[in-house]
Amino acid sequence: MNSQLACVTMLTDFGLSDETVACCKGVLLSKGLNLPIIDISHEVPPFDIISGGWILAGALPFMPLGAHLAVVDPGVGTERKIVILHVQRGDFLVGPDNGLLMEAARRLGGIKKAWSVCMERSGFKKISSTFHARDIMAPVVGDLGLGIPPSTLGEEIEEKALIDYPLAEPKQENGKITGSVAYIDAYGTVRTNILWRSLKGNVKNLKISSSWLFSIPVGRTFADVAKGDLVILEDSWGYVSIAINQGRASDLLGSKPGDPISVEFTM
Amino acid sequence: MNSQLACVTMLTDFGLSDETVACCKGVLLSKGLNLPIIDISHEVPPFDIISGGWILAGALPFMPLGAHLAVVDPGVGTERKIVILHVQRGDFLVGPDNGLLMEAARRLGGIKKAWSVCMERSGFKKISSTFHARDIMAPVVGDLGLGIPPSTLGEEIEEKALIDYPLAEPKQENGKITGSVAYIDAYGTVRTNILWRSLKGNVKNLKISSSWLFSIPVGRTFADVAKGDLVILEDSWGYVSIAINQGRASDLLGSKPGDPISVEFTM
Amino acid sequence: MNSQLACVTMLTDFGLSDETVACCKGVLLSKGLNLPIIDISHEVPPFDIISGGWILAGALPFMPLGAHLAVVDPGVGTERKIVILHVQRGDFLVGPDNGLLMEAARRLGGIKKAWSVCMERSGFKKISSTFHARDIMAPVVGDLGLGIPPSTLGEEIEEKALIDYPLAEPKQENGKITGSVAYIDAYGTVRTNILWRSLKGNVKNLKISSSWLFSIPVGRTFADVAKGDLVILEDSWGYVSIAINQGRASDLLGSKPGDPISVEFTM
Repeated sequence: MNSQLACVTMLTDFGLSDETVACCKGVLLSKGLNLPIIDISHEVPPFDIISGGWILAGALPFMPLGAHLAVVDPGVGTERKIVILHVQRGDFLVGPDNGLLMEAARRLGGIKKAWSVCMERSGFKKISSTFHARDIMAPVVGDLGLGIPPSTLGEEIEEKALIDYPLAEPKQENGKITGSVAYIDAYGTVRTNILWRSLKGNVKNLKISSSWLFSIPVGRTFADVAKGDLVILEDSWGYVSIAINQGRASDLLGSKPGDPISVEFTM
Repeated sequence: MNSQLACVTMLTDFGLSDETVACCKGVLLSKGLNLPIIDISHEVPPFDIISGGWILAGALPFMPLGAHLAVVDPGVGTERKIVILHVQRGDFLVGPDNGLLMEAARRLGGIKKAWSVCMERSGFKKISSTFHARDIMAPVVGDLGLGIPPSTLGEEIEEKALIDYPLAEPKQENGKITGSVAYIDAYGTVRTNILWRSLKGNVKNLKISSSWLFSIPVGRTFADVAKGDLVILEDSWGYVSIAINQGRASDLLGSKPGDPISVEFTM
Repeated sequence: MNSQLACVTMLTDFGLSDETVACCKGVLLSKGLNLPIIDISHEVPPFDIISGGWILAGALPFMPLGAHLAVVDPGVGTERKIVILHVQRGDFLVGPDNGLLMEAARRLGGIKKAWSVCMERSGFKKISSTFHARDIMAPVVGDLGLGIPPSTLGEEIEEKALIDYPLAEPKQENGKITGSVAYIDAYGTVRTNILWRSLKGNVKNLKISSSWLFSIPVGRTFADVAKGDLVILEDSWGYVSIAINQGRASDLLGSKPGDPISVEFTM
């Protein structure tokens, strides 16, 4: 079923300073896994499911088939489920059931089957109250990477029982499209969940939260506008982003993940 | 003897911005090593042997058998020894003889044999005055990973000749246990070297350095107390830690690695 | 031709927080590459070709033969070339034609052949305007790692058509040598491009930009001078560096990459 898996990936909000990420990798290797382990990011802003889910979704389409471990888990220690998603492309995604995995699953063709991990079935060792990534999720990913079927690790659940990605799909009406800020990158560029190709005709005005910005220029790269000027452009994943040439758009606009954003255009 | 090694790990205080970590990995690969190389952390606070040693000890029990390179080395360029420790579990630990490796060695069952690396025996190339990780320690780890016996790399030394981990074992007396701060994590959580299971009965009061804090609540997770409140809890490695829900306990308490800490409890 | 390649390395100014580095690695794995991928640094100061080129040059001599991807690319989206350099040692270097690769190529014996990547030849998928590392360079590195000859990926160009590394070779005259600041490390140590062995006799005075510093002591390590004092010493790659024991020389001296620096010495 998954003999074709070619990698394991990891995304967390653990940071790189302590031993938490390494502990998870140690668990994977201790299982006998011999796939390459690729770090997507361990610097997701703490507990930020929107940002973590967006980065995960930006990375996985460029990965070969894999078992993907994603952990941004404000609910660790509560009753939230830990889930395994098998997607149309063939990958497995493992993480908390809080929406983190859902945008990535959608971009890999959608969910084929989902399981809720059963603590009883899986032969886990001692489980700590706050480090389920190491004690539950990494062992599950290791097992999947070894070809163990997910049905032996959890109970099948319906897709509609899963918690969705926090950002709603953008809505379009009369030359205006409204979506959300999905991620602020290290340069302060505001990445949105509005598909670039959904902008018909000429982009005119931009509404960030409740303020309108008029006649923002559209560019192909940052350098298409003068230093310090705002520019709206297609990001490297096909979505609308707003940047300042050699400046931080997020600081000027006061944007953060989850904020509404609207674009007006003329046909 | 070490044909069963399954990984090489690295822990340093080099940071990730320059080429120092990569140079060490290049040396390992150039030796022909083909084990996975796992980064434990390269963001140990500079020269902080207590923190580095504690993180190493937290990671290694979750790794498969390996050759482990750990470098926090304020004495580089002085007469301090470079040592190879062979532990009961079967791993090799390589690093400066300054206590950095000792807590990890203890958690892997204790030291079976130890060697002091001999510059003469090992066929090293040019050795710089300040980068022994690249010029001496990485070649030693590479050799161990290839199955070369440590006796050809150094001279056997007695365990009692080794410098110990800086933190003393916690001491217990009359319903009070006194240990040390071992690590401040990225969230400001104060991790101590006091085993959670050594607290008998109910935890009552906490003494940080010379100040008493009365009736700190015991929780299972941060979220068991109100936002901004202190909580004492078991960390993911079985030790006592002190946190603030959505705040930085280390800032409030002024704690740093090495500080004494006492816990009173009632039977 | 390149069946002996033993690794792929990566150096970028992308940072580690978002999914950009992982996307490149995903492209490499998706090509079927099964060489170890070593990160040299992803924390090159943004757009800083001098620093990036210097770090790359410090790392590659310690790597086994490889295909090396280096991306510090302020000109992305403009007409700048993407080049493949085949060096005397046998490695391939891939990156933008802006001087970034040139110092490393020099230290690996110099350039044997160079190619400019042809978009037409290479069977690329959709190419974004701002992420050529993922869309062009990583596929090229993957192909080289698989043994595909560079002549099928680009058009041969002459070495003299390539843009050089921004720092000129140091110049020597009458007991004085003048070079440049090449890199400021995480500790504020000022690394220069002046070879230590080019200092004849006794080092006397140091000129940083336009200010003279007299009688700086020469040390073997930082600790050879008192806390807070300046020291001039040989760095771990054989070049002149200026440090402050437990302080930041770059802050005191106001140095940045590219600044001129002169050393006077007496025979």
